[in-house]
Amino acid sequence: MPKIKAAVLAATGAVGQRFVQLLDNHPWFEVTALTGSDRTIGQAYAEGCRWILAGPIPDYAKNMKVIPTEPGMDAAICFSALPADQAKELEPAFANAGHFVASNASAHRMWPDVPLLIPEVNPDHTALITAQQKNRGWSGFLTTNPNCTATGFTIALRPLLDNFGVKRIFAVSMQALSGAGYPGVASLDIVDNVIPHIGNEEDKVETEPQKMLGKFVGGTIEPAPFRTTAHTNRVGVVDGHTVCASVELETKASPTDVARVMSEFAGPEIVRALPSSPQRIIEVRREADRPQPRRDRDAGRGMTTVVGRVREDPLFDVKFVVLSHNTIRGAAGGSLLNAELMVAQGLVK
Amino acid sequence: MPKIKAAVLAATGAVGQRFVQLLDNHPWFEVTALTGSDRTIGQAYAEGCRWILAGPIPDYAKNMKVIPTEPGMDAAICFSALPADQAKELEPAFANAGHFVASNASAHRMWPDVPLLIPEVNPDHTALITAQQKNRGWSGFLTTNPNCTATGFTIALRPLLDNFGVKRIFAVSMQALSGAGYPGVASLDIVDNVIPHIGNEEDKVETEPQKMLGKFVGGTIEPAPFRTTAHTNRVGVVDGHTVCASVELETKASPTDVARVMSEFAGPEIVRALPSSPQRIIEVRREADRPQPRRDRDAGRGMTTVVGRVREDPLFDVKFVVLSHNTIRGAAGGSLLNAELMVAQGLVK
Amino acid sequence: MPKIKAAVLAATGAVGQRFVQLLDNHPWFEVTALTGSDRTIGQAYAEGCRWILAGPIPDYAKNMKVIPTEPGMDAAICFSALPADQAKELEPAFANAGHFVASNASAHRMWPDVPLLIPEVNPDHTALITAQQKNRGWSGFLTTNPNCTATGFTIALRPLLDNFGVKRIFAVSMQALSGAGYPGVASLDIVDNVIPHIGNEEDKVETEPQKMLGKFVGGTIEPAPFRTTAHTNRVGVVDGHTVCASVELETKASPTDVARVMSEFAGPEIVRALPSSPQRIIEVRREADRPQPRRDRDAGRGMTTVVGRVREDPLFDVKFVVLSHNTIRGAAGGSLLNAELMVAQGLVK
Amino acid sequence: MPKIKAAVLAATGAVGQRFVQLLDNHPWFEVTALTGSDRTIGQAYAEGCRWILAGPIPDYAKNMKVIPTEPGMDAAICFSALPADQAKELEPAFANAGHFVASNASAHRMWPDVPLLIPEVNPDHTALITAQQKNRGWSGFLTTNPNCTATGFTIALRPLLDNFGVKRIFAVSMQALSGAGYPGVASLDIVDNVIPHIGNEEDKVETEPQKMLGKFVGGTIEPAPFRTTAHTNRVGVVDGHTVCASVELETKASPTDVARVMSEFAGPEIVRALPSSPQRIIEVRREADRPQPRRDRDAGRGMTTVVGRVREDPLFDVKFVVLSHNTIRGAAGGSLLNAELMVAQGLVK
Repeated sequence: MPKIKAAVLAATGAVGQRFVQLLDNHPWFEVTALTGSDRTIGQAYAEGCRWILAGPIPDYAKNMKVIPTEPGMDAAICFSALPADQAKELEPAFANAGHFVASNASAHRMWPDVPLLIPEVNPDHTALITAQQKNRGWSGFLTTNPNCTATGFTIALRPLLDNFGVKRIFAVSMQALSGAGYPGVASLDIVDNVIPHIGNEEDKVETEPQKMLGKFVGGTIEPAPFRTTAHTNRVGVVDGHTVCASVELETKASPTDVARVMSEFAGPEIVRALPSSPQRIIEVRREADRPQPRRDRDAGRGMTTVVGRVREDPLFDVKFVVLSHNTIRGAAGGSLLNAELMVAQGLVK
Repeated sequence: MPKIKAAVLAATGAVGQRFVQLLDNHPWFEVTALTGSDRTIGQAYAEGCRWILAGPIPDYAKNMKVIPTEPGMDAAICFSALPADQAKELEPAFANAGHFVASNASAHRMWPDVPLLIPEVNPDHTALITAQQKNRGWSGFLTTNPNCTATGFTIALRPLLDNFGVKRIFAVSMQALSGAGYPGVASLDIVDNVIPHIGNEEDKVETEPQKMLGKFVGGTIEPAPFRTTAHTNRVGVVDGHTVCASVELETKASPTDVARVMSEFAGPEIVRALPSSPQRIIEVRREADRPQPRRDRDAGRGMTTVVGRVREDPLFDVKFVVLSHNTIRGAAGGSLLNAELMVAQGLVK
Repeated sequence: MPKIKAAVLAATGAVGQRFVQLLDNHPWFEVTALTGSDRTIGQAYAEGCRWILAGPIPDYAKNMKVIPTEPGMDAAICFSALPADQAKELEPAFANAGHFVASNASAHRMWPDVPLLIPEVNPDHTALITAQQKNRGWSGFLTTNPNCTATGFTIALRPLLDNFGVKRIFAVSMQALSGAGYPGVASLDIVDNVIPHIGNEEDKVETEPQKMLGKFVGGTIEPAPFRTTAHTNRVGVVDGHTVCASVELETKASPTDVARVMSEFAGPEIVRALPSSPQRIIEVRREADRPQPRRDRDAGRGMTTVVGRVREDPLFDVKFVVLSHNTIRGAAGGSLLNAELMVAQGLVK
Repeated sequence: MPKIKAAVLAATGAVGQRFVQLLDNHPWFEVTALTGSDRTIGQAYAEGCRWILAGPIPDYAKNMKVIPTEPGMDAAICFSALPADQAKELEPAFANAGHFVASNASAHRMWPDVPLLIPEVNPDHTALITAQQKNRGWSGFLTTNPNCTATGFTIALRPLLDNFGVKRIFAVSMQALSGAGYPGVASLDIVDNVIPHIGNEEDKVETEPQKMLGKFVGGTIEPAPFRTTAHTNRVGVVDGHTVCASVELETKASPTDVARVMSEFAGPEIVRALPSSPQRIIEVRREADRPQPRRDRDAGRGMTTVVGRVREDPLFDVKFVVLSHNTIRGAAGGSLLNAELMVAQGLVK
């Protein structure tokens, strides 16, 4: 079977580099285009890109010429690592021109006809795509993956919602530096320090999970009715977002039950065979002091959500800690899994 | 007026060093004894102590001989930096022998006849001391200061409770390394990492504030009736504990009102003139990204509680961030202020 | 005696902020002007400046209006925190207009008629000023302080050169983040990392000390004849540059002798009474593991050079470690001490 | 072919864990015994060991019972992660009992009849083994791998010595935390700090390379005649030791020539086919700011030595930066490669 051609939009940035890395030797996709800013256009990727990841630039990408971010390249799928403001203009233009855009940007996540997608959580939301194409007259289409902090957190909530119902959530994040891109957070702001604020982040964490955990009813998504309060913080960690959560359930459940349903969560069958699916969607640790970002972020090659410290909450029902790799599961890996789902669902060939 | 003689128990540890530092040139107290472990007894303090604070060992302490931690030294006040297990045995022995013990240890904080004290918050709780001495037949007495994380948090709650009443609280901490003593947290556990667990800490944060904010009624403390859930985390910060809190009030109040009552909180009059009292008890910052531990922990020479990001909470009423210096305000400085209060109240001469 | 009026050029940057901080309550100088970039001109300093230092903005500066960096303001002294490229154009214009420019920029350090000055090391080099004014037709004049890494290192060499002569030096630095300004080093580049390269730094360390330790002979500076090789590195430290040095002497000397002459180095008499002079120019530590940047950088309020580990070198004669606060002694504090020297020498009134 | 049975001595410590990890699925060796301290004996490895590495404990090891460190277990090879003081007693006992001990400890490195071995550097030094067994009456034997800082540095010197000769070396290290074991360096000692001292380290760096680069002549090793001075420092990096070196050569050579011979260094043929040999022994980076520990330590799965910034030295001939993974190449991986060499040389079957 020939591989499906794919482009990476904004391939030289922090998330773009993760796309380039994760697409190396991908069994289904082949990278045919890398786009970049004016500064880098025309250069070999290895020249134009200040590679910040550990490990080398994949060989396939080194000599690819960076091209402008314009629709029409020979690529069925466009992985978008565009910043939100550029995504706003460019992603619709790509979808209009017939590309499938698997976007990591926040610009269109809350559009009512755009799936905000985590394959294990809401693969049926791709049903929005028909309406999306019709409404907008697009020959291509657009899916998005959620905010990096909302991602692991939403995965952990799926089995809770299914088994016990969820009413209210208190969530406090300790987020990694790579979530702010490169150069991103100045070292003078974070060494021996915490920054208790990340612009626009709390709003995303308070609204995106409800859309993903909502129901596709009558051609539209009816958001899940729980409510969330979020406090988001930046800490001096390279990769891996940690979230402390207290959850009020509809039906009482013990920490043991909660840990069990998370641990047993297998996701929809169509997702299990996708190349980037982790063997375990949620790994529940029993040690008192896990998960920890440096030690657990690479679980399932960065695609597993690691939960720990599941215990009773004196105010709500249960409290726990969720860890998720923000630039793999919460960004490039999330978009990639979305694209694999599109292929499995026959939406991209 | 001659200075009051004071000893530091366990003077060579992390908190003991802060006592030694803060007592340098104290206007009311003069250090007459420094106690230490078997390893250090008989040595000059500068020899026996592995000084870990920035800045030099105060001159007065350098050549003092480290003595055993046994009652009977020439000191009216004993500042206790003893570990909880040693404090359990030794502090009652010191109180029994006529010393006033100003303790930073957790061992006796929840004893019903021992004041758990923050001078700005509950100076009237020293009324317990009469009963304490009578019950136990002590000629001295014992006061304690709270857990380092509970400290700033309780100070911030005082004006909220007084003005609006408090029902429920969510609190998540990001705590400094110095809170674990020395050597404490291994560097391999914290570089590029977060540890989402601190032994026994959540229980303290969930119970100590209620005692401090409780009422002295009929010879005993009636705890404040609010309930708290706490998640406590260790982060790679040298000094300064940060707490994210969401608070449900009895009476609705806007973030502006909440910020105002905290900012205006002046504390009881008797406290304002104490040598270690900060000029402002609570400083409310208006910037989006403050307080930050490295930049704000030294406010009021480490004795001011810094609050920021006071905003509406989607679940409860208000959310905000509290920062407090854990080894000054939350430990040695707290005990010192307690001792100053005893002097001002005429309990120590 | 009325205070001398002083301006800070580029007052909103990292070094500019240190000038503003160190000039708070200065006994001789009064700040009358703060200049900034186009973005900040016209704003109150507290508004235009993103203050990155610990502690608050000094009260005197908060409401001062930021003005353009143009000669002619009412200020005898202009402390320059300008970046090198702007300093190149602007500092001569200020000197030409009659201001005394005390510059921290590298642009003019190696001009033959500009003193590169550390008061304790070469106060007599101000003799260049007469020629400077004559050659260039300036009514004002210009002095510079050295590169932050060269500073502590040169101070440590002064007594060695005087007592034993110096032939060759190996120097490897581990430099603080604040040396790169703000935002400067990206956090993703330095957490769990070392950057073994700082642009143009090695050349400065290999040449500036020779000028400072050179002799003023026949109206010009004859550089000291020793040779240096430097390796410069960035490490995850907020403030304080550490240098490992091996030194070959003209005359053999033991580590004890070397430590002694450094420890006893008192500097020229005129320097001792300057307000920013530290009590000890060089502090020699005897502990095996000192100096350390976090614990020793504030020695002498950041103006003392701390040396440790003085020991025999198997190749040259002696090796040791030098620590110096890079934004105080190595930048703003250095310029300030230079200005104080000018006043003491009667060059500024 | 049946696998050779191997034990890991002191398997629960930091280096022991690396052995356990690297031996997972090893093509030649099978782990049959894990030894530990009194505290852990009798427990399952996963219980007794506080696993500090990223990623999980290998499945094979989880349920192995920890046994005492006593000769006689069913294992031809014993990988020793023993601390130096225990190694001193125990390693000779194991060799005496017929085991081949591949040791990472420093205790016997400088014994004249014990090979101090890096397979790419001095595989012929195993010729010492015959004498070793004869002298000591051992049926087994003992090899050692060098100090973690000396390792990368010695590999980089091999082609320089072969091509140009080496006279004098100046070396300054910036060493990772894992080099001190676990718990090792206290976090309060290293956050926002550098420790300019590592006990006994400088002596090792100044003497071990000469033995390894020496010649086996007349039944003994004649050390290479160059001389070294070392300054060793601890920095806040998890893994990866960085060394800045200036080298004086016998024959002049340009930086280009030096970079070329390092880059082309292929090692002895017998080493190339060993399972743990990296594809490239030395990788020479051309970027101005590489190597960096976080980004380059995993080159060649932690077995490649990465060199960068090869440039002229104003005092000696050439200066450069060397990076080596201290717990892989510089410890467990080094011992493992030594054992593989023994097999290839027919010394172990």
